[in-house]
Amino acid sequence: MTTQDVGIVATQYFQSTQPLPLASGACLPEFTVAYETYGTLNAARDNAILLLHALSGDAHAAGLHHPNDRKPGWWDAMVGPGRAFDTDQFFVICSNVLGGCKGSTGPTSRNPQRQQRWASDFPVITIADMVNAQVQLIDSLGITQLHAVAGGSMGGFQAVEWMAHHAERVQTAVLFATSASSQAQAIAWNVIGRQAIMRDPKWMNGWYDPSEPPCDGLAVARMIGHITYLSDQSLQGRFDHRYQQGVTPRYTLAEEFTIESYLGYQALRFNERFDANSYLYITKAMDYWDVTTGYASLAQALAAWQKPTLVLSFDSDWLYPTAESQKIVTALHHTGADVTFRELSSPAGHDAFLIESDLQNPIVRQFLLKHR
Amino acid sequence: MTTQDVGIVATQYFQSTQPLPLASGACLPEFTVAYETYGTLNAARDNAILLLHALSGDAHAAGLHHPNDRKPGWWDAMVGPGRAFDTDQFFVICSNVLGGCKGSTGPTSRNPQRQQRWASDFPVITIADMVNAQVQLIDSLGITQLHAVAGGSMGGFQAVEWMAHHAERVQTAVLFATSASSQAQAIAWNVIGRQAIMRDPKWMNGWYDPSEPPCDGLAVARMIGHITYLSDQSLQGRFDHRYQQGVTPRYTLAEEFTIESYLGYQALRFNERFDANSYLYITKAMDYWDVTTGYASLAQALAAWQKPTLVLSFDSDWLYPTAESQKIVTALHHTGADVTFRELSSPAGHDAFLIESDLQNPIVRQFLLKHR
Repeated sequence: MTTQDVGIVATQYFQSTQPLPLASGACLPEFTVAYETYGTLNAARDNAILLLHALSGDAHAAGLHHPNDRKPGWWDAMVGPGRAFDTDQFFVICSNVLGGCKGSTGPTSRNPQRQQRWASDFPVITIADMVNAQVQLIDSLGITQLHAVAGGSMGGFQAVEWMAHHAERVQTAVLFATSASSQAQAIAWNVIGRQAIMRDPKWMNGWYDPSEPPCDGLAVARMIGHITYLSDQSLQGRFDHRYQQGVTPRYTLAEEFTIESYLGYQALRFNERFDANSYLYITKAMDYWDVTTGYASLAQALAAWQKPTLVLSFDSDWLYPTAESQKIVTALHHTGADVTFRELSSPAGHDAFLIESDLQNPIVRQFLLKHR
Repeated sequence: MTTQDVGIVATQYFQSTQPLPLASGACLPEFTVAYETYGTLNAARDNAILLLHALSGDAHAAGLHHPNDRKPGWWDAMVGPGRAFDTDQFFVICSNVLGGCKGSTGPTSRNPQRQQRWASDFPVITIADMVNAQVQLIDSLGITQLHAVAGGSMGGFQAVEWMAHHAERVQTAVLFATSASSQAQAIAWNVIGRQAIMRDPKWMNGWYDPSEPPCDGLAVARMIGHITYLSDQSLQGRFDHRYQQGVTPRYTLAEEFTIESYLGYQALRFNERFDANSYLYITKAMDYWDVTTGYASLAQALAAWQKPTLVLSFDSDWLYPTAESQKIVTALHHTGADVTFRELSSPAGHDAFLIESDLQNPIVRQFLLKHR
């Protein structure tokens, strides 16, 4: 099947002047959700799919903002005519999470009560808070029920939250490389990333000048994250023991191995596009994530969800390993949901859900069309 | 069998005024090796075992320095009468590595040519350089041939280096949780740890005031290391999702999870005992480690070694996984060495070699006595 790109798209903004109550008991006095849409909402308003992004994602899932853009949106290979999220069939929505720095309200936004940016006065948020903001977004679009929610990693957390607490608003769900609760090792990596940022003297308790952010701390945090997203095998294949210059070592404390320059480059690019406080708030929301909180079991937490569900994991993903997906599958067997589970084989590690579109497209496409 | 502690011990110092040529082509004009010994060298001078420490270890492998010491040496449970390294049978030696900060020459030592400490003028060193300094130490003790070399992790690197390039000086070898070359993921963690230190403004290109070291960078480096030493499973069992205070979250950017306070505590203790520049030099030596450099294969590199060898790995060790030990075992089958290989079952991850003395003691003890 030939597929097509979605072309030029623009980010839109949903602005609420109503307060948003948060899980912590605090309240956001007003909030904005940045979002993009691809395809057309049908007359019945029942063909919408909400894509949910991971830690470093944003609303720009597909297409280009400008014809000269170097890269399309983060899930472009999955969105468009003939692709999994087929814009000839579906109205695809993607919004930036609350706490983010790509247009939705977060620590870089203006605090209306103080007439300055929120910085570390921003309240701690949760995955449930992110989803509550998304519910208001789809309300504003006149959508009563989504055909699907779909997301990987932290995007999958949000999808599971929709399943657990907004089951009546969703018809099907697609989970990629995710978990129903954050595990200790994943929390630990986030903790260390936050420590790197908060120990950077430029962090200044969150009140850094936006022109002089704690870029060294964020760089180290990103490097840690990056290694957890790749498999041991793929790292070894790409970098092995190779030197940047020639085949013999220079015996220097400076950059020597290709993996060193690669990580340095990744960190630099990340600093260009991400805010350090957002990184703190979003990773903390991830660490609090446990959909079973307040329930006797995961099956209890998901009791309201009896809809078709596609669960995909990757055999080389050690950050959210297959065992985490299997817990969700087992719980859904208890609720009586119609679950399809596939562990896909890929050397790409956790990042596979962003990369392995050839593997994912036919499976996800078939699932979504079958339950149309 | 009842076993005994080795009691009170003192660190000793071997000082060489002869230059030590290094793999890089540079030369240390003079050097000191701090070491400890347990047990008695026999008249034939053939009962010595050299213990080789890992990244954060030192010469103090066993016993107490003072009766009031809070903790004994790092491998105390393996050293003493009735234990694996039986001081009734063997003369056990452990020395601090070159580049270290516990008495052997390293970046905190005085540079005799500049009359100030070496800091980042210290030359980059390798595992081979560390072993060359150890060779001079045993020469100074009048030991022609060691009964055994034994070490885990980076200690195992040194043991493999002894096997490859000083085979005539060693009778047997015991390797724990180690590898014949650093793999890309292990290098990456070290790279990120070094980045954390070198991006700390207090590092000052290595010329920090010893009273104001880059403790935040070293803290982050240690936290990263610490998580790689533990298994996913042990972290989950010990920390899960637990909060430090009570059973409900406080929703704060500050410390919340027990894993956060644990990592903070570990980092604090590490800063009390370790030098940031030493961390840079030793991890760089680890990253350069590849005993096959200059050989067609690992079997070629180990061709001179045809002695009894015990190789132990741990099933939950993901930093130096069993597959790395198996490469050594396969190569030794080619050389015709008498190899015993055991993958031990432990939830302790890479740290198992420091912790699982009950598992290790009988196996190692039997091996060493059998080949006495």
